[in-house]
Amino acid sequence: MADERIPLPSVRRFPSYLRILMQRKDAGEKTISATTLAHELGLTAIQVRKDLASTGIEGRPKIGFSIEELIFSITHSLGWDNATEALIIGAGNLGSALAAYGGFSAYGLRIVAIFDKDPQKIGKRIGDLVVQPLESINQYIKSNRVTIAVITVPANQAQATADMLVKCGIRGIWNFAPKNLKVPDDVVMQRTDLAASFAVLSVMLRRKYREETEGEEEESL
Amino acid sequence: MADERIPLPSVRRFPSYLRILMQRKDAGEKTISATTLAHELGLTAIQVRKDLASTGIEGRPKIGFSIEELIFSITHSLGWDNATEALIIGAGNLGSALAAYGGFSAYGLRIVAIFDKDPQKIGKRIGDLVVQPLESINQYIKSNRVTIAVITVPANQAQATADMLVKCGIRGIWNFAPKNLKVPDDVVMQRTDLAASFAVLSVMLRRKYREETEGEEEESL
Repeated sequence: MADERIPLPSVRRFPSYLRILMQRKDAGEKTISATTLAHELGLTAIQVRKDLASTGIEGRPKIGFSIEELIFSITHSLGWDNATEALIIGAGNLGSALAAYGGFSAYGLRIVAIFDKDPQKIGKRIGDLVVQPLESINQYIKSNRVTIAVITVPANQAQATADMLVKCGIRGIWNFAPKNLKVPDDVVMQRTDLAASFAVLSVMLRRKYREETEGEEEESL
Repeated sequence: MADERIPLPSVRRFPSYLRILMQRKDAGEKTISATTLAHELGLTAIQVRKDLASTGIEGRPKIGFSIEELIFSITHSLGWDNATEALIIGAGNLGSALAAYGGFSAYGLRIVAIFDKDPQKIGKRIGDLVVQPLESINQYIKSNRVTIAVITVPANQAQATADMLVKCGIRGIWNFAPKNLKVPDDVVMQRTDLAASFAVLSVMLRRKYREETEGEEEESL
């Protein structure tokens, strides 16, 4: 069971490796070197070799890694062998954007339904999906055995939403709401906060400008 | 210049504070306690007091913080007093989703244009925007003095895109492409990798299931 030992920073890079490997495979290539992967992803070759070794695959001198083998073992390490089905809760701007975003399927995530409690949103069509009423979610999860949910409701509804999802049997929650959520130990929570990322970008940019202005003032003294 | 001292983890939480404060202000409230903010965001009250102190605002015993003052000082610390204009490069699924996502405006980010090099995408309407040809971007940036760009192109085009943006005068890059990008020291880069987040969620969920299965096996011994 190699993946108990795979560090999470390596896990975070696996999807990027997969994407490159798929492209190369489609282009008819059979092998790839750590150096090429490193170059494509802006990593060091040492890091690439470590990451790939954690999946149990070894490269061969002068030949490199088998693309086929790497795709198989990374996909397996991620548990992406079978497409995972997930729900979205919250059909606001972000929920709708994520539901319409086709890119998830590239890494084995299939959004199969979207729910909202707002009567004005229920019935709305988003890509291939139609927004369903929140009251029907328990029934849906039980009938379809979905285990992952994406939360895109406002912050003040996020904890109640998570509690409800856990009661319905959801085991993995991807939380886009700007709030830390409490879940039982047997549920996995992953958080993505877009506003937080933009806040850091804004502040870093301000600091750069300030450094420059201060630099200029010093020069003019 | 308080914000030179604000730690980035506090900066990441500022947008969440702002969102709560705006809601309370709209509801006609004048003050708020650190405990209430902590409860709403799943943080400790000590953390909240530290974060807010970094903006230079102090709460008063039994009264709490002035909502108006906090909104002003957090907005100012983030440099969100004036709406920041940004471009999106790459009108694929993610770029289109982000362009259509209305939620950015809540934190002072206004997407003013979207560019792509694919002739099939140029001219396509996304919300209020029309996809423009990549060749016209230099002209656009110069005429409109935009300083922030969001990159949503494929990994193998991301570095060339960043290089081009920097040449055109872009100073802040929000990179959604799955690749580490090199930029000069005077440019700020912030990365968001959705696939990486989902990879961590997948692997953690697998580990949970495995722990449970192993637990059951032990019990049955």
